[in-house]
Amino acid sequence: MSKGLPDRSNDFSAWYTQVVNRAGLADHGPVKGTMVIKPYGFQLWENIKETFDKMIKETGHVNAYFPLFIPKSFLAKEAEHVEGFAKECAVVTHTRLKSDPDKGVVVDPESKLEEEIIVRPTSETVIWSMYKKWIQSYRDLPVLINQWANVVRWEMRTRLFLRTSEFLWQEGHTAHSTPEEAEKETLDILELYRQLAEDHLAVPVYTGLKTDSEKFAGAERTYCIEAMMGDKRALQAGTSHNLGQNFAKAFGVTFQTKDNKEELVWATSWGVSTRLIGAVILTHGDDKGLRLPPRIAPIQVVIIPITKNEDQANQLKTYLNPMTEALRSSGIRIFEDWTNNSPGFKFNEWEMKGVPLRMEVGPRDIKEEKVVLVRRDSKEKLFISKDSVLENIQELLEDIQENLLRQARNFRDENTHAVQDYTEFKEVIKQGGFVRCGWNGDSKVEAKIKEETKATVRCIPFNENPQGLTCIKTGEEAKHEVIFAKAY
Amino acid sequence: MSKGLPDRSNDFSAWYTQVVNRAGLADHGPVKGTMVIKPYGFQLWENIKETFDKMIKETGHVNAYFPLFIPKSFLAKEAEHVEGFAKECAVVTHTRLKSDPDKGVVVDPESKLEEEIIVRPTSETVIWSMYKKWIQSYRDLPVLINQWANVVRWEMRTRLFLRTSEFLWQEGHTAHSTPEEAEKETLDILELYRQLAEDHLAVPVYTGLKTDSEKFAGAERTYCIEAMMGDKRALQAGTSHNLGQNFAKAFGVTFQTKDNKEELVWATSWGVSTRLIGAVILTHGDDKGLRLPPRIAPIQVVIIPITKNEDQANQLKTYLNPMTEALRSSGIRIFEDWTNNSPGFKFNEWEMKGVPLRMEVGPRDIKEEKVVLVRRDSKEKLFISKDSVLENIQELLEDIQENLLRQARNFRDENTHAVQDYTEFKEVIKQGGFVRCGWNGDSKVEAKIKEETKATVRCIPFNENPQGLTCIKTGEEAKHEVIFAKAY
Repeated sequence: MSKGLPDRSNDFSAWYTQVVNRAGLADHGPVKGTMVIKPYGFQLWENIKETFDKMIKETGHVNAYFPLFIPKSFLAKEAEHVEGFAKECAVVTHTRLKSDPDKGVVVDPESKLEEEIIVRPTSETVIWSMYKKWIQSYRDLPVLINQWANVVRWEMRTRLFLRTSEFLWQEGHTAHSTPEEAEKETLDILELYRQLAEDHLAVPVYTGLKTDSEKFAGAERTYCIEAMMGDKRALQAGTSHNLGQNFAKAFGVTFQTKDNKEELVWATSWGVSTRLIGAVILTHGDDKGLRLPPRIAPIQVVIIPITKNEDQANQLKTYLNPMTEALRSSGIRIFEDWTNNSPGFKFNEWEMKGVPLRMEVGPRDIKEEKVVLVRRDSKEKLFISKDSVLENIQELLEDIQENLLRQARNFRDENTHAVQDYTEFKEVIKQGGFVRCGWNGDSKVEAKIKEETKATVRCIPFNENPQGLTCIKTGEEAKHEVIFAKAY
Repeated sequence: MSKGLPDRSNDFSAWYTQVVNRAGLADHGPVKGTMVIKPYGFQLWENIKETFDKMIKETGHVNAYFPLFIPKSFLAKEAEHVEGFAKECAVVTHTRLKSDPDKGVVVDPESKLEEEIIVRPTSETVIWSMYKKWIQSYRDLPVLINQWANVVRWEMRTRLFLRTSEFLWQEGHTAHSTPEEAEKETLDILELYRQLAEDHLAVPVYTGLKTDSEKFAGAERTYCIEAMMGDKRALQAGTSHNLGQNFAKAFGVTFQTKDNKEELVWATSWGVSTRLIGAVILTHGDDKGLRLPPRIAPIQVVIIPITKNEDQANQLKTYLNPMTEALRSSGIRIFEDWTNNSPGFKFNEWEMKGVPLRMEVGPRDIKEEKVVLVRRDSKEKLFISKDSVLENIQELLEDIQENLLRQARNFRDENTHAVQDYTEFKEVIKQGGFVRCGWNGDSKVEAKIKEETKATVRCIPFNENPQGLTCIKTGEEAKHEVIFAKAY
């Protein structure tokens, strides 16, 4: 039914807002632009976090924690970096409140700080100020540190999960003795991001390089994973930066090489955030709400008992017990909804919440020794013998995971167009979709296209083939084949 | 050897600072009072966090995330609360930086916020402003939410892990329909804290009630776990608050009861923080550094190969392989130190880091089909047949866990004195230790004692027996038996 869920094809934005709200994922905080991640949304984040945390630990990374507060002067040490973040910094200036007889509680002017403090928008500067202390010799390298943290970027136009003043993320910050090693790290992490997106979130992504105008403030090169959302707009889902020696230079971080030379350290940084939850909603959601990939779904199977009275309920519990035990002990995340709401209400609610499989069981099923399974992805209804429930559910969860990825990939591929003509380019961008085309590599041309169409270069994909292509705007020989799209 | 580690019995404070530093647990951040938790310290925190997270999830709690930023007016809504935190608030007043030709990067005065924002010192106010939206009926209760987060309390005199301007913690915030249920929750959580401290950190604690002067700003009642550190001072290791209806009143959070009445919601909040790491260091540390309880130790067994050349190293690897595989697959956290440092250097380093068991293996051990194990807690050296390594290590880790708790409990009990006379009281407090004695329940008397001796009431223990006791200060009939001590 999805009573009142706005039409996805007409007003995607209103649909998104309603799904986030009605699936119980998040809410707006009292300070403008802040977000409350509600328990169901947070479980999703915990599953994503646990998945990626395992990946980075298996590749030799360790977690640590660096302070929220950065001295203003630190941010200013890397010129591009401060320029990139200056317009969205929360600045702490005082450290006390006091009572005022007229105005109530006021900021105590006497508590003014000598140097203002920035609430971290990202942690390169504070981390490299520490690496300065920790790194002396090649023996101290590589440093492969990650942190899970909150960061603040003051935003005017915010949207839950996609753009909020505070968000949660992981930020990796590594230090290396050679540029080759730093480049390898940058790309290795990008590959982990691709795996996280495709194998776990079922979100297909293009991997590639950002153009100069889209790269991270302070990076030499930014690589990214870019996904297509259900409205055919692009979402940058993760970035991995080769920082070269920029931050080592800014903070004077050198190391003694094996042959006793003094050299600046090479750096990378990389992050994915709670924005990934937005990507999952926008990629897989449908008219009935969320559709969650089983691997990250907080609940993989919801069980809806259909009973008329307490006797039936007790019979059902006895009937269900061996099945739920088998499911639980196999690590399948199940939830039994024994609330007093009607089955129809429950079906809608759990569809809205995107639970991959619904299991319905009533008195008739006991008699026939079966259960009913309904797939969230395809709405397919299956009648399963009670003895093969575990096996079937395991297979179905795998199949749903694959199917969501396949559907999303098909959708993306159908809406990615190789275009050679600027009129056609503008038409595709207007209709929605990705454009693959040639570009002469000139930032001014890129800016002009953005001005005229709102489309930006999402990435120079790794599998680009500029051979024989001309620049979509100027007709000159193409330097790169790129992907253009309007983006979130 | 522990070269240069200050004498623990003479200068406990310097000893602590050095251990934190040399064990690689933490470092000072650039902004005064902030802390960097280094990877080894953070693994300790991850293990503590994982342990407690499991406990609260098993008891029906869920995690969520609330914003870092709180409007100033919210903090002011609960009178006691704002008074308690006003003097240590980081206040955000601006949202942009800009370039100034003379001064470099400055705060843009035009970005001044209309209402100042407080960086959360604790989240009651922001959370109850949300509960106002989420709770309407008894059907919405209880709400059992926890969050793992950073909080900021501006501190002048800071010490790593024990008192820092920013720290990591969990804060539970629950909402209930009856005062009995809220009280039960407060005490249930305190019991989980006790289990966490004693069964996992091997830190014995007294459980009890705080006096009014020591309770949380905004609570009706604060319960706590209190531990004795190696210098005989007390450390408050966790608190659980029954908030009554104070925050529901401040934010107007009412619910419809089963019989259609409108009532204010009952609340609890509770927290433990990275301070627990300080408790572990201060409870178990010795002249050689840290001693970590096996259940939370990042590394439970460190393996030190003793080799003269590469041939021997290869033989050792072959010899060790089946053992390390068995250990790893049994979930034991091991680390093999194949660095080029000398065995003596390695012994010292891993003793400093508090690894519970050291396994030494050399060519002679291969011949004799054994390994050498050295316990960190007792320094005992054991010769173990290679075939029973796994079994022995499992038993030893259990034994070390128990032994650390037993040692700490003995130490605490030996230094807890039942005292009836104020002169003796002052002598014990001066020498160091806990005093159990009578108190007439008067806050002024409590304040006077603090003024004269620096000792505070750590708690009114659950097992108090005021029968026949007189107030240590006034000689009046005792209202409570309490525990006094100087505290961190």
